[in-house]
Amino acid sequence: MIAQWPEQAARLFDTIAALSRDPQVGITRESYGPGESDAIACLSDFALTQGLEVATDRAGNVIFTRKSDNGQPALWYGSHLDSVPQGGNYDGLAGVVAGLLCLCRLDREGVATAQPVRVIGLRGEESAWYGKSYIGSRALVGGLSEHDLQLTNRFSQRTLGQAMQAVGADLAAIGRRQWLVDRTQFAGYLEVHIEQAQSLERMGQAVGIVPGIRGNLRHNQVRCLGEDGHSGAVAREDRHDAVFAVSELVARIDQCWREYLAAGRDLVVTVGTLGTNAAHHAVSRIPGEVSFSLEMRSLDMATLEAFHAVALHEAKAIEQARQVRFEFDLRIDTAPAAMHAPWVEALVRQARQQGWQGVLTPSGAGHDAAVFANVGIPSAMLFIRNQHGSHNPHEAMALDDFLVATEVLYHTTLELTP
Amino acid sequence: MIAQWPEQAARLFDTIAALSRDPQVGITRESYGPGESDAIACLSDFALTQGLEVATDRAGNVIFTRKSDNGQPALWYGSHLDSVPQGGNYDGLAGVVAGLLCLCRLDREGVATAQPVRVIGLRGEESAWYGKSYIGSRALVGGLSEHDLQLTNRFSQRTLGQAMQAVGADLAAIGRRQWLVDRTQFAGYLEVHIEQAQSLERMGQAVGIVPGIRGNLRHNQVRCLGEDGHSGAVAREDRHDAVFAVSELVARIDQCWREYLAAGRDLVVTVGTLGTNAAHHAVSRIPGEVSFSLEMRSLDMATLEAFHAVALHEAKAIEQARQVRFEFDLRIDTAPAAMHAPWVEALVRQARQQGWQGVLTPSGAGHDAAVFANVGIPSAMLFIRNQHGSHNPHEAMALDDFLVATEVLYHTTLELTP
Repeated sequence: MIAQWPEQAARLFDTIAALSRDPQVGITRESYGPGESDAIACLSDFALTQGLEVATDRAGNVIFTRKSDNGQPALWYGSHLDSVPQGGNYDGLAGVVAGLLCLCRLDREGVATAQPVRVIGLRGEESAWYGKSYIGSRALVGGLSEHDLQLTNRFSQRTLGQAMQAVGADLAAIGRRQWLVDRTQFAGYLEVHIEQAQSLERMGQAVGIVPGIRGNLRHNQVRCLGEDGHSGAVAREDRHDAVFAVSELVARIDQCWREYLAAGRDLVVTVGTLGTNAAHHAVSRIPGEVSFSLEMRSLDMATLEAFHAVALHEAKAIEQARQVRFEFDLRIDTAPAAMHAPWVEALVRQARQQGWQGVLTPSGAGHDAAVFANVGIPSAMLFIRNQHGSHNPHEAMALDDFLVATEVLYHTTLELTP
Repeated sequence: MIAQWPEQAARLFDTIAALSRDPQVGITRESYGPGESDAIACLSDFALTQGLEVATDRAGNVIFTRKSDNGQPALWYGSHLDSVPQGGNYDGLAGVVAGLLCLCRLDREGVATAQPVRVIGLRGEESAWYGKSYIGSRALVGGLSEHDLQLTNRFSQRTLGQAMQAVGADLAAIGRRQWLVDRTQFAGYLEVHIEQAQSLERMGQAVGIVPGIRGNLRHNQVRCLGEDGHSGAVAREDRHDAVFAVSELVARIDQCWREYLAAGRDLVVTVGTLGTNAAHHAVSRIPGEVSFSLEMRSLDMATLEAFHAVALHEAKAIEQARQVRFEFDLRIDTAPAAMHAPWVEALVRQARQQGWQGVLTPSGAGHDAAVFANVGIPSAMLFIRNQHGSHNPHEAMALDDFLVATEVLYHTTLELTP
């Protein structure tokens, strides 16, 4: 670690927090909105004072480079600069600051790396704003569509296309699904991020290394259709009760999930929304309709497929036993992403060098690194311990833990591109 | 039967259906709301053209009397004029029309009964609107409280007190739990109602006689409180998932109900409303809150108490296993009610006179007759066959079956008060 880091990091975090403090609670940096742009401006000022160069890519993301950068394929540090509404200060920002501090140190110490090293501050990672995640990274690699650009902001009526245009993005190229950078420019991607789970906190580890990022398989809406009826007036054998049917299904799914975990498989199952039809339901009416969502996450696509089949099978059995019908909407898949194994090993090694265990912490949440990994760019991630989970105003990160991660990132870079 | 009945009945049913047709589907007559008031207006017009008198009681219910009524303790025909949202046309209305046609016939044929006969069209029977049932009959016999008058309409923010005041009810007296009529005025109560179950349909009988009415024990709202969280980022052992908790509880309750039935106990259990909190829920968020209703019905109060204890016990076990909390709102009880045995026998006799078997059909649903019976007023009920259950838009009743019931009611009256 170099002497300036603690003070520089604290000042950047504090300044950006002040710029993006939500009037009610927490931090709000809207994708392609003011808080995010303010963070870019603040980081750019800092980079310029440190003798770095600042540019904007064709998707509106900010790029920091050394003056000595020769334009060859580079190793990229990155993370995102937006937040969920009323979220915390470190989810995303920590990774960009860590990269920037490392880049300054390389420059200051005159290290001539085999490949150039650059930092990218991505916009639009959080799906909370436009219902779509990893927008800034997807846009770079041809992963957005015309249709995505029509998505509207949940809190205003602005479309994503309008918001991206306002920060200088090349909508025409994005709509055509073109890569916005030369594919060969991305020799690799390294992302530092706070852990969104609390496994590091539980294990007493400042940092963890991500072996892979879970993909998911979702049904935004499953409907169970039975038959309404007066609750006092239909014999049990004549009931087609959607609540009893769905409760049985969800309880079975929960039980099967437990069995999968016991068998050592990586899986998370969530029924996040559930409800009888408010236009029809009543305390004394047999519920004829229930809707719910079903989300499965796993590092392994085969596990997702297998569990999805289990859920459909259980639904079929309940349909027959209770004479109800389940209607599943179109499934939406996001593939799991494996991190680049040699780099995972390098991060583990460097974490151990710093006196930590170098534990593996699979990522349950998605990250920009998954976008890059899934188009074939070698990618790796380092997690920082966080005390109160993420996506909430109480998210917390100790500066010491951040500095450990930044040190590991720096030495890993020296190992990967000596 | 007299010649006018089919045409008069059909016209009243059709006219009132047209007045209360729901813009989307079925019939909607809100308690103390427009459809219910329109039905009262339509029946009142009819009664006046038939030479009857019309009055409103101190709870806003409509009363039809003969000009010859001497004010002595009377035999009352009655039922209710509201419906559930998007329900059917005959649930409630059929009984008032049957009573009115009988009263007209008594008048037209100049029958001088030993006791006066009157018809009451009750308001506010359905709990779907204010979470409280039999409001119109309870109000008459001191069965509502100050607190009940503060209940709010599920679809607006109007309180029950405001709604009752708008139709002229005496809130002060109701809040003091006073009887709004002289107790001796109610010599008896006879209610015709469509059967809400389909046992008559299955037995091929136009009418059935009710020996007793199930009571119920309700929680309009039970809340399960867990903890919100990112679905990908909280380990299973750290989850406090309200949907999994409630699903397990409901599945257990369903299983216990099955066991009670197998043991020969009379019981019906319904979870009519169920839902995650729409202000917080999301497909990828661990659900921290679920609300649901719980209703138990039985002819036997001890069975209700025992099953209620089972539900609380299961909830407690799940609270501990899953670290969630269940909050049950105040329980609402409606006692089971036995019908007046000599009148049950009279109805059976008269049904047989009309060529039917006079089968006994216990009522699974509650009725205003239970309110009157439980304050000591001799009460009896006659059910009419119905094809598709009640509390739904497909509810059906054949005019011929209705006319059988009206004929049985008429002749039973002559037998009870010759």
